[in-house]
Amino acid sequence: MSNIRGFASDNNSGVHPDVLKAIASVNNGHAVGYGDDEVTQRTIVKFKELFGETTEVFFAYNGTGANVIALQAMVRPYNSIICPETAHINVDECGAPEKHSGCKLLPVKTGNGKLTVSDIKSYMHGIGFEHHSQPKMVSITQATELGTVYSVEEIKEIAGYVHANNMYLHMDGARLSNAAVSLGCTFKEMTVDAGVDVLSFGGTKNGLMYGEVVLFFNQDVEAVKYIRKQTAQLHSKMRYTAVQFEALLSNNLWYRNASHANVMAQKLADKLKSIPQIKITQPVESNGVFAIIPSDLIEPLQEEFFFYVWNDEKSEVRWMTSFDTQEEDIDKFVNLIKEKLNNR
Amino acid sequence: MSNIRGFASDNNSGVHPDVLKAIASVNNGHAVGYGDDEVTQRTIVKFKELFGETTEVFFAYNGTGANVIALQAMVRPYNSIICPETAHINVDECGAPEKHSGCKLLPVKTGNGKLTVSDIKSYMHGIGFEHHSQPKMVSITQATELGTVYSVEEIKEIAGYVHANNMYLHMDGARLSNAAVSLGCTFKEMTVDAGVDVLSFGGTKNGLMYGEVVLFFNQDVEAVKYIRKQTAQLHSKMRYTAVQFEALLSNNLWYRNASHANVMAQKLADKLKSIPQIKITQPVESNGVFAIIPSDLIEPLQEEFFFYVWNDEKSEVRWMTSFDTQEEDIDKFVNLIKEKLNNR
Amino acid sequence: MSNIRGFASDNNSGVHPDVLKAIASVNNGHAVGYGDDEVTQRTIVKFKELFGETTEVFFAYNGTGANVIALQAMVRPYNSIICPETAHINVDECGAPEKHSGCKLLPVKTGNGKLTVSDIKSYMHGIGFEHHSQPKMVSITQATELGTVYSVEEIKEIAGYVHANNMYLHMDGARLSNAAVSLGCTFKEMTVDAGVDVLSFGGTKNGLMYGEVVLFFNQDVEAVKYIRKQTAQLHSKMRYTAVQFEALLSNNLWYRNASHANVMAQKLADKLKSIPQIKITQPVESNGVFAIIPSDLIEPLQEEFFFYVWNDEKSEVRWMTSFDTQEEDIDKFVNLIKEKLNNR
Amino acid sequence: MSNIRGFASDNNSGVHPDVLKAIASVNNGHAVGYGDDEVTQRTIVKFKELFGETTEVFFAYNGTGANVIALQAMVRPYNSIICPETAHINVDECGAPEKHSGCKLLPVKTGNGKLTVSDIKSYMHGIGFEHHSQPKMVSITQATELGTVYSVEEIKEIAGYVHANNMYLHMDGARLSNAAVSLGCTFKEMTVDAGVDVLSFGGTKNGLMYGEVVLFFNQDVEAVKYIRKQTAQLHSKMRYTAVQFEALLSNNLWYRNASHANVMAQKLADKLKSIPQIKITQPVESNGVFAIIPSDLIEPLQEEFFFYVWNDEKSEVRWMTSFDTQEEDIDKFVNLIKEKLNNR
Repeated sequence: MSNIRGFASDNNSGVHPDVLKAIASVNNGHAVGYGDDEVTQRTIVKFKELFGETTEVFFAYNGTGANVIALQAMVRPYNSIICPETAHINVDECGAPEKHSGCKLLPVKTGNGKLTVSDIKSYMHGIGFEHHSQPKMVSITQATELGTVYSVEEIKEIAGYVHANNMYLHMDGARLSNAAVSLGCTFKEMTVDAGVDVLSFGGTKNGLMYGEVVLFFNQDVEAVKYIRKQTAQLHSKMRYTAVQFEALLSNNLWYRNASHANVMAQKLADKLKSIPQIKITQPVESNGVFAIIPSDLIEPLQEEFFFYVWNDEKSEVRWMTSFDTQEEDIDKFVNLIKEKLNNR
Repeated sequence: MSNIRGFASDNNSGVHPDVLKAIASVNNGHAVGYGDDEVTQRTIVKFKELFGETTEVFFAYNGTGANVIALQAMVRPYNSIICPETAHINVDECGAPEKHSGCKLLPVKTGNGKLTVSDIKSYMHGIGFEHHSQPKMVSITQATELGTVYSVEEIKEIAGYVHANNMYLHMDGARLSNAAVSLGCTFKEMTVDAGVDVLSFGGTKNGLMYGEVVLFFNQDVEAVKYIRKQTAQLHSKMRYTAVQFEALLSNNLWYRNASHANVMAQKLADKLKSIPQIKITQPVESNGVFAIIPSDLIEPLQEEFFFYVWNDEKSEVRWMTSFDTQEEDIDKFVNLIKEKLNNR
Repeated sequence: MSNIRGFASDNNSGVHPDVLKAIASVNNGHAVGYGDDEVTQRTIVKFKELFGETTEVFFAYNGTGANVIALQAMVRPYNSIICPETAHINVDECGAPEKHSGCKLLPVKTGNGKLTVSDIKSYMHGIGFEHHSQPKMVSITQATELGTVYSVEEIKEIAGYVHANNMYLHMDGARLSNAAVSLGCTFKEMTVDAGVDVLSFGGTKNGLMYGEVVLFFNQDVEAVKYIRKQTAQLHSKMRYTAVQFEALLSNNLWYRNASHANVMAQKLADKLKSIPQIKITQPVESNGVFAIIPSDLIEPLQEEFFFYVWNDEKSEVRWMTSFDTQEEDIDKFVNLIKEKLNNR
Repeated sequence: MSNIRGFASDNNSGVHPDVLKAIASVNNGHAVGYGDDEVTQRTIVKFKELFGETTEVFFAYNGTGANVIALQAMVRPYNSIICPETAHINVDECGAPEKHSGCKLLPVKTGNGKLTVSDIKSYMHGIGFEHHSQPKMVSITQATELGTVYSVEEIKEIAGYVHANNMYLHMDGARLSNAAVSLGCTFKEMTVDAGVDVLSFGGTKNGLMYGEVVLFFNQDVEAVKYIRKQTAQLHSKMRYTAVQFEALLSNNLWYRNASHANVMAQKLADKLKSIPQIKITQPVESNGVFAIIPSDLIEPLQEEFFFYVWNDEKSEVRWMTSFDTQEEDIDKFVNLIKEKLNNR
């Protein structure tokens, strides 16, 4: 199974060659640690160019790290955080948000991983009542964990309600690049301009070795450097984190990678549509394909292409494409499915 | 100042070329995430060969991360942790140990960064008394933050006392390689064989891009994978962390790097001895040199070679050497000192 | 409005006269603090008589305190706790469970405040998968926050499933006495004999000034005294807490108080049934009556008898009876309702 | 041993009769819970009269509870709190401050339990440096755990330094009444007027059954009600807590109780002075007497009058007097000491 490009996750892929080259390019001499180096400083400038001058930039190691920095910075332990039930912070971080922030998460059932104002409203009670955790943050994921994408208008609507209720809007952007490609808009239009207050911007799933960034928009960030350090997310040899983002944001690498992954997901979905036993369950708006497949197919397929079951009861699986997915991978996989179905 | 090899910290150095090569060597195809890949598995075997079969291996991003995983795994919030006042966990992690573990740290003043049984004893009161945090862990650093090194006998003595009192011994081995070189012993002799229960083994300061490992010796580690994940220290593309350690543990790279750094520290110390205005304050047993220097010298020197002041009141500074320190760097630095002294 | 006996909460009532007398009876001389006194020791014996010899007894100040002691003792931060959405630990403790334990709560929607094995099962996935908080405790409330009561059989069924899955069963017994009266069984039959592992036993809502007890059944409680102290729930002048429970458990006071409150709730419900505009929404099995009432009635009623709205959208309210509720209070209240309805 | 008035602790005494009477006086009818009742409101007014109009008042169950509410309200997890090594928050709360606040405590060795500006200064380094916990609060105890008392001038000096450095001054006033008597000043002069920002005001050790208050002076307290609830320190039947303080603050009861205890401590110290084998180690400024006594005397004395050993190595013990200590208790105790000494 080793080294086959599969559909388990976009973090099963490797590092984009341009990113490796960028790393090698800064590997000379000494540099002050913890971000006071030239490479980090010029990458911060790059982020400010993309997201606006009032953006504050904090690099972290991984998505969970970025998310819990964002949470600790904006909420206090007696607050609650409203998010979709499928949110990474709710189901994929082993309770890190609760442990680090002390807060309660209020998970909302959704059909497509996307929160609506109406969903949020149903949790807006007990305000000012000391017996209830006080809602202070709404967290949405763009693109969602189900491969769907919020429109800019949808984000604005949520942000409007959130701010009108004295709360903050967090965006988990582990796959923000895929969403930007999908919407055909800039990062800025989809985040700060739409009312996002704090963003976890992902690199790992789009071709980096590791690395995420927390971006604060128009916020007081005096505490954040301490929070990052105390959360064990401060890299000493920071230039190696920063330079990966510099590469990603240069020559449109982020766009090329995400765009390719999205196209591959579309192709996979298209080819699957011809197989009547497979039912695609979510609109394919970024780089994931969710499908209900015959349950006896799962294990035989996984033996050759590892992937995750999304919902055991429904026999629903998740297939992710990546910057390095090739059409031949898709053909191989689709053919395998057909073969296994024929041999039942 | 950029790119000059200075003496600020061994984490200001870059990545050893062999490590970069190793990274490139695994950059093909896909690999299952989070450590279930071949590279990670074979690196774990390598650690078991070095530290013994009952060693359990957990990779982390950085030293603070490794330390707080170790702490959370072994103690509970009502416990206390005895350590030297100069311990990294006490003064360099922005309170991460307290925040993550909920525990009290009991910092002990020492002259040389090394704890003794007698130091520990002075905190062993109120045992069983619910009003007091219950001492459950002793944490020592090898090599210490002051560049000194515990002998194997000293570690054994501490471990004996610690275990006789139903506690655990943690070793912060951010510079364990430098200590091993200094003592001329194996990692195993200095750790598991000497009674260490859990070890933070450092890579970053000895030539890696990032990466530390927590090693548990003969412990129940069922909870640790969850603790690591919840602490935001689980790398998705784990092969890139693991392969760096594989490189470090291959071809004696760890030894060559640490040995070189130690020799460079000795040379620096030797050359400084001829300068009467400089007083070396700690035995140079690993890769650090601590010295009291004329206070008016500090800023002019820092302008050309950045380094940290260790103790403002005493005008004591810290100079660290690294795997890539060159004799010419030392000569340049010592000459600069002389020049600045002459021009006063 | 002051001093009227209303239906807002059973904690709006005062202290039963026998309890006040008991307090006065121990108010002489000095006693060793923190529970090492005679009164506390003999009250512990009383609890062991009622719940069995292997019961371990820890007094606390209030219900939230008792619950978070129970949680911290049995689970670790990477665990999750399954409970009904209406559980006090989920909606009435301002996030104390998350803050103190670091755990995730998994709230389950129920119609009647009672959990079923099938509810629990739907959260039992991702076991052993480090990305998910690991379910380790199920918490049920007896009587529930909706005034309903689990049968002994229902508890046994839950306990069976919970233990088969290597988890613990916590019971929040803030109104345990009302449930025991309702079921006509002993405390023991409904708790330790039915498989409960840890119980928060309530006193405040049944006639005490303050005070709850955490009872552990067949558990290792070595850590609990430290947890209680660290949670700020250890009373120095413990005899005054203990003696209240001694009074409650003597001369069947607990039974008389709870029984009276339950009867009063029945009477209230019976009288309300004749009012067609009022719809009782839950079976009245303990001392609470839940009803949907015309929304324009709420404020006028509250002006004379304060009570809490349970569900704004449904115009559902909660009326609680207490050990000191009198039939005349009920008549007065029901007449008021009728009068307000007539005058609309 | 039971019921003998000894010298173990001022919390071994009972409840002052006036306090019991006050409790009985509010035991009629129902009252809204959690502090929205008349008794609580008028007691809050009483505190405002004593401490000034901008005082905000939060009742809690015990001293540890009050302290951790104060801490959580004013500091964040990356902050540190400077206090004497002997502070209750440092050695008598089982790590509650670290657990609840996430902060690091910086304990300072002192001879007499009193902090000085010079002590504080020695910890004021690494400001703005993210690797260090940032000092944000100084906590002093009045009267100290060693029975000594800060002068108003000393407090002002500390407060001046604290505020000049952008920190807060917390006072643990578990025995504030004893200090006020000792200094002959008002509560206000010693606290808010001297620069204290937040005060834990103690009742339990001065004749209450239980109960402490956290007083904030000129602070934003919006978050405090949630913090208190989440810390499990919010009493439902609040009137019973409040009325105890009303009694304490009425008819000078606080003064009479504390004054009596102080006088008794003086008498005890005076009588001990005639015994050459006993060496009083601290000035007797409030209601505690610290003394080095022959170590073989400790156990025989404890068998008849229980008390705590303060320092095992030095054979130093602590004797506390209380509002109900009688001269005959002192005579009995001193005679016992003499007798035991003679019979050696």
